[in-house]
Amino acid sequence: MTDEPVVPRSRRERPAKPPLTREAIIGTALAILAEEGLGKVTMRRIASALDTGHASLYVYVRDTEDLHAQILDELLGRMPPISRGGDWRARMHELLASYTRVLHQHPEIARMTRAGHPVGPHYFALVESTLELLNEGGVGDDEAAWGVDLLLSAVTANAVEHGTDDFAGKNDDALIATAGQIATAGTQYPHIARLGDSMLSGSAAERFEWGVDVLLNGILGTGRA
Amino acid sequence: MTDEPVVPRSRRERPAKPPLTREAIIGTALAILAEEGLGKVTMRRIASALDTGHASLYVYVRDTEDLHAQILDELLGRMPPISRGGDWRARMHELLASYTRVLHQHPEIARMTRAGHPVGPHYFALVESTLELLNEGGVGDDEAAWGVDLLLSAVTANAVEHGTDDFAGKNDDALIATAGQIATAGTQYPHIARLGDSMLSGSAAERFEWGVDVLLNGILGTGRA
Repeated sequence: MTDEPVVPRSRRERPAKPPLTREAIIGTALAILAEEGLGKVTMRRIASALDTGHASLYVYVRDTEDLHAQILDELLGRMPPISRGGDWRARMHELLASYTRVLHQHPEIARMTRAGHPVGPHYFALVESTLELLNEGGVGDDEAAWGVDLLLSAVTANAVEHGTDDFAGKNDDALIATAGQIATAGTQYPHIARLGDSMLSGSAAERFEWGVDVLLNGILGTGRA
Repeated sequence: MTDEPVVPRSRRERPAKPPLTREAIIGTALAILAEEGLGKVTMRRIASALDTGHASLYVYVRDTEDLHAQILDELLGRMPPISRGGDWRARMHELLASYTRVLHQHPEIARMTRAGHPVGPHYFALVESTLELLNEGGVGDDEAAWGVDLLLSAVTANAVEHGTDDFAGKNDDALIATAGQIATAGTQYPHIARLGDSMLSGSAAERFEWGVDVLLNGILGTGRA
């Protein structure tokens, strides 16, 4: 606050509107997402923030679904690059954990990707990195070609299922809800009764790590034939 | 249509209302589901069909979410029993394909199960059968205990993703949508360009069968340690 008197300014003196670009639209969408949640990320709201009509946006973004897909792709572009050198398997864990973190931070967007494969250059880069690591790990071409979808879909499904849980912690609402029932499984379900404690053991992160190894070992050991 | 004249009947002559049971509620819910879709399966609609107040239902069904869970469990109860004898792996494929069919026939209910593990006696029976087959296949107890969740979650995720596709056929909207992009991947994504055709090959059913074997082999070959 200053004491300067308010001087009327001609419209001509206002700075020109920045040019409308895809980057400006997605950047604005991300700012609204961070501050107000996905429900507020609409074409109309973005147009208003950019001081333009929402019809102008359709040159860059097809519809709300496309908008959300472009937001996810932008977020994937912020994933740290995977380490160079070292064990391919460790780097695969690193890559998938990094993808998981993006999905965990934006469960609404993760849920949306369930309906169809994400698209965009950064998702393609993720697919490419996964294929590269599978190749380095000695996975055959046929198995890598199908395995990449199995791996990335499993990560997405896991992120959606555990979206609101504490990923690093021991809390898994779904498992806890099942625990009471398992405890009373009794003689009708002897395997569940015997393995109940083990079924509920481990953190979400430990289960995730094991699940990735199961998939990698399975892909390595299962010909498509 | 007959020519009999309409004779007024005393209320006392009407048949007594059938007793309100959980079976009657879920049976009515299933009939509404089949005829009008999940959106119409509400407590109010069921109460109206059963000629009672919707408050009476809450003794048997906690809320809409619980109602949907009980519907899924009822549907799982209609799965054919798995074959006796023969290869454990073939029977596992049979069991998971049978679970898949239930989820495919009711994609809205399948989607709902993503939020949490299904509950109920028939889901428990499915878990028990899966554990029994893993045990028969020589999977260690620790691996079976975590593996059962990995298997059933993968089946659910797959059913949600391909819910509206022709499971037996070659149509996979998600893959077809990606195909155009893969074709133009070019030199920026050399692995995608090289494996593109292979990534898009196979039917959803072939990919599902392979995915189940990947999981089974991975679970067999990955100690929890």
